[in-house]
Amino acid sequence: MNLAEYIFAHRDQHLNELCDFLRIPSISAKTEHKPDIERAAQWVASNLRSAGFQTVEIVPTALHPLVYAESLHAPGKPTILFYGHYDVQPAEPLDLWTSPAFEPTVRDGRLFGRGTADDKGQVHIHLKALESLFKTHGKLPINVKVLIEGEEEVGSVSLWEYVQKNKARLQADALVVSDTSMLAPGVPSITYGLRGLNYYQIELTGPERDLHSGVYGGAVPNPITILCELFAKLHDKDFRVAIPGFYKDIAKLSKAERKSLNALPWKEKDFRKAVGAPAYCGEKGFSIVERLWTRPTLELNGIWGGYQGEGAKTVIASKAFAKFSTRLVPNQNPDKIARLVEKHIRKLLPKSVKMKFETLSTGKPWVAPFHAPIFQIAQAALQKGFGKKAVFIREGGSIPFVTQMHDTFKVPCVLIGFGLPDENAHAPDEHIALDNYFNGIRAIAHFYEDLASL
Amino acid sequence: MNLAEYIFAHRDQHLNELCDFLRIPSISAKTEHKPDIERAAQWVASNLRSAGFQTVEIVPTALHPLVYAESLHAPGKPTILFYGHYDVQPAEPLDLWTSPAFEPTVRDGRLFGRGTADDKGQVHIHLKALESLFKTHGKLPINVKVLIEGEEEVGSVSLWEYVQKNKARLQADALVVSDTSMLAPGVPSITYGLRGLNYYQIELTGPERDLHSGVYGGAVPNPITILCELFAKLHDKDFRVAIPGFYKDIAKLSKAERKSLNALPWKEKDFRKAVGAPAYCGEKGFSIVERLWTRPTLELNGIWGGYQGEGAKTVIASKAFAKFSTRLVPNQNPDKIARLVEKHIRKLLPKSVKMKFETLSTGKPWVAPFHAPIFQIAQAALQKGFGKKAVFIREGGSIPFVTQMHDTFKVPCVLIGFGLPDENAHAPDEHIALDNYFNGIRAIAHFYEDLASL
Repeated sequence: MNLAEYIFAHRDQHLNELCDFLRIPSISAKTEHKPDIERAAQWVASNLRSAGFQTVEIVPTALHPLVYAESLHAPGKPTILFYGHYDVQPAEPLDLWTSPAFEPTVRDGRLFGRGTADDKGQVHIHLKALESLFKTHGKLPINVKVLIEGEEEVGSVSLWEYVQKNKARLQADALVVSDTSMLAPGVPSITYGLRGLNYYQIELTGPERDLHSGVYGGAVPNPITILCELFAKLHDKDFRVAIPGFYKDIAKLSKAERKSLNALPWKEKDFRKAVGAPAYCGEKGFSIVERLWTRPTLELNGIWGGYQGEGAKTVIASKAFAKFSTRLVPNQNPDKIARLVEKHIRKLLPKSVKMKFETLSTGKPWVAPFHAPIFQIAQAALQKGFGKKAVFIREGGSIPFVTQMHDTFKVPCVLIGFGLPDENAHAPDEHIALDNYFNGIRAIAHFYEDLASL
Repeated sequence: MNLAEYIFAHRDQHLNELCDFLRIPSISAKTEHKPDIERAAQWVASNLRSAGFQTVEIVPTALHPLVYAESLHAPGKPTILFYGHYDVQPAEPLDLWTSPAFEPTVRDGRLFGRGTADDKGQVHIHLKALESLFKTHGKLPINVKVLIEGEEEVGSVSLWEYVQKNKARLQADALVVSDTSMLAPGVPSITYGLRGLNYYQIELTGPERDLHSGVYGGAVPNPITILCELFAKLHDKDFRVAIPGFYKDIAKLSKAERKSLNALPWKEKDFRKAVGAPAYCGEKGFSIVERLWTRPTLELNGIWGGYQGEGAKTVIASKAFAKFSTRLVPNQNPDKIARLVEKHIRKLLPKSVKMKFETLSTGKPWVAPFHAPIFQIAQAALQKGFGKKAVFIREGGSIPFVTQMHDTFKVPCVLIGFGLPDENAHAPDEHIALDNYFNGIRAIAHFYEDLASL
């Protein structure tokens, strides 16, 4: 039986097995699911063993265990590190699920359940691709290291400690991740760029205490008003971020890349439907796709101060707060941007308020040279799996693990996503299209097979 | 025994009696204190009877009872309606009280306890002044109607219904209220002006649902940012409200009144100490006292939207909210101002958000002709009680009952306050200075006596 025949013959078995995996409520954020987390780690380890891996370890950590496996029996061939996670988001609000979150159910060619897309379904694609190679070739055609963690949804702290302590062991020629989405249904996609993310919080204090707005209004600084006036000054009328130096280091997009991104089968209609705003705005001179993937932003993520209850309270608040973030693109330096942001805000504020400024986190943007051979192999493999040419896309979000791994190992990272933009990761009715799941196993099996030629 | 001798001789008895009144925790906001509210109403009624009133009624209402009393045995003499309230604010946070809230305690010449200043202590001043007149004259020298409610701290709904249904009965030549403060210690004060208050709430909706700020940031409207940009446009650089027509109807302050207000023994140092802001701001061209009492404002009272929890959430909120208010001065019309505010805000907003605008309440400003005879009588009586000339002040806050009564009965309202700016009404360690309490009884007794000559 060749590879394609093996995969086709095992469709039902693979799907049933995935459903077993999905039934384990491995919610990393909730202490009461600790036994389920342990069970999921055991399940992954056992699945790797039956796939054909001889070296499989469950690595205890301060929180949830990692699963590590390796098969290094292809001397002279490339070594690939595959990363994924077996933990899932909480399923609440439960009443919004059409079928229960942890009872996987097929409807209209889609498999519904928590973790189908993020990330158990995508991890399972790799496990079954590798199993198919083991079963049909007797051994893997390349060297493979597998690292599946259980803390992705709660910050990956243990993972990062493990990576730092096991650099030599994890060394590879490339990192492969399947935790992203396809551009659109029927469009296999390779993500080669992510925006970076700095997240900030500020606290303004005007009066020392909350004041009666009748007794004091008109003669004292109102920190909420001052906060509003501050944020009104951080964009110009062309929707550009009005912080000196913010755009200075940005790598110019090549004409070819710009043309290629704008030619993608991306539909503004679908975008508008997903957002549902009365009208749209964005940086002048750039298309929506360019704005989302290749341009930096400054966005308010939260604001609060004063009275938020029912009815009226005539208060002038002592304090006002905001959380905001900057998405960054190559070659913006997160630390430099954080300094520019703080400096400019301090300059803009009047003397009538004190400010506490915190940079809660910084994160680099990432972009890969998608003309490199490994990307071409991935594209060809996706075509074998899906019967359609894969596109190269960027994403507006940030995956800290990818940039950290890229910085640590200086190797290419290939992000091949099998989710869909409307797949509801982190929301009720999360699902994966069965076509993408089955085609994904074929594509990834070909990918690992073809990497032998790298 | 003449009036002054009677009052002096009964100092201890009056104070002990006030302490009995203060020990009743008549908290109108809390259902479990309903029996205490009933007890306080009984206490007031009984005190009015023993003072000398023959007609005393406890009026049941949908919530807390009113106490009404009258003595109309001075034909040809003026009729005065005295208003006060026997209910109090909750005492929380209890651990911040130096002595328990409902165990009145004297320290440093001040009586501490919930209700000492707001308003039981001030009500008791009037009860004891009237009692002193009854006991020394045999009857009151003028006609007096007394209306003491139990819902002032929860909105006075029953009071207002009662007034509407009993207009003829409540008719008087003047309304007298003691529920305000003196300008400063040792400065007896008559309040002749209050600002009006309109209170608003707006809700902006951009995207139909909360969005991931990485996936969508840069190409969608952020309602929090748009809310900030809106409020940044509502003041100009001179701190004037930038709403067309906002200042149009304002009555110009006479040179004499302006001079008189600015000559008051008001100390900027005390104001700054009470506020504690790093620096101050306010409408250009006006002194602080003018800004607080005679100029309208627009103040944000609350703002919220997006993520307010710990750490980071990369969300673009679907909605953003604000509560804000305009303080109004004569002759601004609250309904007209509400229309101007809504119209201008609708004009300023971009098409990328929908707005829900609510005017939660409107309230007129009020100013009295303080050269009218009754004000002169009040000033002279305060001098008899305190040995110092009383000043005429305005306040920045709003007392809806005063403007409603003024509009309903078209009679002068005289506001004589015996509290102090730092007396902590609504806060822990509420107190009244014993000097102000005892001098208050003397002053008010003289006031009612001298009104016979009106």
